[in-house]
Amino acid sequence: MDYKETRCGVCLPGFMAGGIKRGKYGVALIVADRVCDAAAVFTKNSVKAAPVLYTKAMVKKGIHVVVANSGNANCCTPTGMQHARDMVNEAAQSLKVDPRNIAVSSTGVIGKPMDIGTVRDLIQEVATNLSSGPKGSIQAAKAIMTTDTRIKMYSAEYKSIKIGGICKGAGMIAPNMATMLCYITTNARLSKPQLQFALNLAIEESFNMVSVDGDMSTNDTVLLMSNKTKKCKLEDFKSILKHVTVELAKMIARDGEGSSKFIEVEVCGAKAQADARRAVKAIMNSPLVKTAFYGENPNWGRIIAAAGSVVKVDERKVEVSFHCEKKSVKLLFGGKIGNLEEARKLLGNRNIKVILDLKSGSHKAVGWTCDMTPEYVNINAGYN
Amino acid sequence: MDYKETRCGVCLPGFMAGGIKRGKYGVALIVADRVCDAAAVFTKNSVKAAPVLYTKAMVKKGIHVVVANSGNANCCTPTGMQHARDMVNEAAQSLKVDPRNIAVSSTGVIGKPMDIGTVRDLIQEVATNLSSGPKGSIQAAKAIMTTDTRIKMYSAEYKSIKIGGICKGAGMIAPNMATMLCYITTNARLSKPQLQFALNLAIEESFNMVSVDGDMSTNDTVLLMSNKTKKCKLEDFKSILKHVTVELAKMIARDGEGSSKFIEVEVCGAKAQADARRAVKAIMNSPLVKTAFYGENPNWGRIIAAAGSVVKVDERKVEVSFHCEKKSVKLLFGGKIGNLEEARKLLGNRNIKVILDLKSGSHKAVGWTCDMTPEYVNINAGYN
Repeated sequence: MDYKETRCGVCLPGFMAGGIKRGKYGVALIVADRVCDAAAVFTKNSVKAAPVLYTKAMVKKGIHVVVANSGNANCCTPTGMQHARDMVNEAAQSLKVDPRNIAVSSTGVIGKPMDIGTVRDLIQEVATNLSSGPKGSIQAAKAIMTTDTRIKMYSAEYKSIKIGGICKGAGMIAPNMATMLCYITTNARLSKPQLQFALNLAIEESFNMVSVDGDMSTNDTVLLMSNKTKKCKLEDFKSILKHVTVELAKMIARDGEGSSKFIEVEVCGAKAQADARRAVKAIMNSPLVKTAFYGENPNWGRIIAAAGSVVKVDERKVEVSFHCEKKSVKLLFGGKIGNLEEARKLLGNRNIKVILDLKSGSHKAVGWTCDMTPEYVNINAGYN
Repeated sequence: MDYKETRCGVCLPGFMAGGIKRGKYGVALIVADRVCDAAAVFTKNSVKAAPVLYTKAMVKKGIHVVVANSGNANCCTPTGMQHARDMVNEAAQSLKVDPRNIAVSSTGVIGKPMDIGTVRDLIQEVATNLSSGPKGSIQAAKAIMTTDTRIKMYSAEYKSIKIGGICKGAGMIAPNMATMLCYITTNARLSKPQLQFALNLAIEESFNMVSVDGDMSTNDTVLLMSNKTKKCKLEDFKSILKHVTVELAKMIARDGEGSSKFIEVEVCGAKAQADARRAVKAIMNSPLVKTAFYGENPNWGRIIAAAGSVVKVDERKVEVSFHCEKKSVKLLFGGKIGNLEEARKLLGNRNIKVILDLKSGSHKAVGWTCDMTPEYVNINAGYN
């Protein structure tokens, strides 16, 4: 379809946003001009941060405002639920909005008590500095960054249906999970079950197909809010939403902690869709594959070994190839080994696509990841 | 039980061994004075190296000799099966042994043709330089090393039942797999099914509970050979074999690629044994947990998040503690946070034990791993 990329992020008409970062802490607000119907997906980790539990319980009432902080996950501390409520109440007072329609998220270190005083101060400040259009969205996207090095925001339009999102996430992004935090706004008039259905589908093919290190966060949240101002076909909505979430997912992989390369992994020719997905995830989660990309080492053996650990791989049949903007190199085909020197050169690019064709069916899956570098280890050794 | 540690490795009475390393290649031979009854466990990866397929098919005929090479995995090349046979035939001629009773293994890079000429030369040389006792075992253990920095060999005795082993493995050691290569000899007179049963049990609690990077090799092989010279109770054999395999498994974790710390992970208080095992594996496979140990960062949040991704974790109930030889520190107990400065100091040690008590049952599992360092990435980026 012919999506028009827009630049407004979450600040579609009818939405404002803002954000401030100060020291370790950041606060973002997304404020709709009415109570929106909402859909959400949360972490499947049995350890859930207080704001996840809080927001999970209120989503069906509709969302008017999202308040989110970075710098502390508000997870596994005795004061967690109280602080989540404090954030909601502060936002409610500052914005004169019913607290029952305020969603809350946190991201950052687990197990340390949150400096709620600082967070409340920031909420007050942001509430008086909301902007519409790109400015507000950029500020909000910036405020929720932790180890992210770039803001992540994307929006598109098709037949006047608008969908925009911001997200954060750079490490602890697992393929069995949504991303760390993502907020999506739309004007599409659909029922709540339709919104939830489309969100579930989109996440399966976007955030659930991203891997930075294979870990699973306690705070992951994807919220979708609709102000229902535009009539919309479900099929159209599904495809625009998938497009927007895939773009955001790619930004996360591209910004993987310490990464030097962006890698798209496609497994095709699989007997079943589930096989293709499992193989993509196994390849993306393999530290050996990720370190080989960092070393610009065309080690196709690690790729088929990773896939072979979860699906049937016949090394005499399968085809492994690398692709970049201008070139393609086959590494393995029909049991023969290709030009590995050419493959090594191709790995000098920052953006690489790997295709593993299992040659045993017609199903395909795609995912996005990055290489693993010494810098990844250093970032996570020191993160406090 | 009161095992006596012996120093002979695989060279129990009735066994000789030898090994030579030259350049990239190494060859080891283990030679019994008769055809031994054997049991074996192989990689579960669907991509299996030629020597794995070869040996899997011959094990039940009994093993007289093991020939193994390092430097090339003899995997995913068109000449794989021919070269596996070449190695067997070379060993058969050099040692005047029936080729049908020769097991073969390879370890090293996948997908590159093996320099079979060099390997044959080395087999001939080793065959004329076999030794009994520690010397032979050390030479063989050394010859199968790849990224290993230390030889791995252990043997013990109880009521005249002797069991000894050598192994190699430092990276690509996954908890769903045996280690890379391991050879165990014994004098215990037991039936083949009993040997296999005891080996399966021992591997579950030893090599399957080790994690270096969570990848799964194409070549993993554990072979157990018995010359049946000593009457033995199955119960005694099971416990000695477990002891020997656990000691070897710990050596692998201790020698994890680029590692600076050895970490024992215990999950207790679990509702079921399977839960405890899954939680141990999730903790051991988490790059975030492993990098935190490298950074001497007492991040208990990552530990319970990793466990929480696979089992039910109630953070208000569970207890997380670190232990070293002389000290113990509780990090989390009954929802309270312990003395993290003390915990940080404790992490200065090279050997650390982590205990996560789920406080919801009476089952327990233990595993062994290491920290993840920038050196791990560098080793695997460059390994060819």
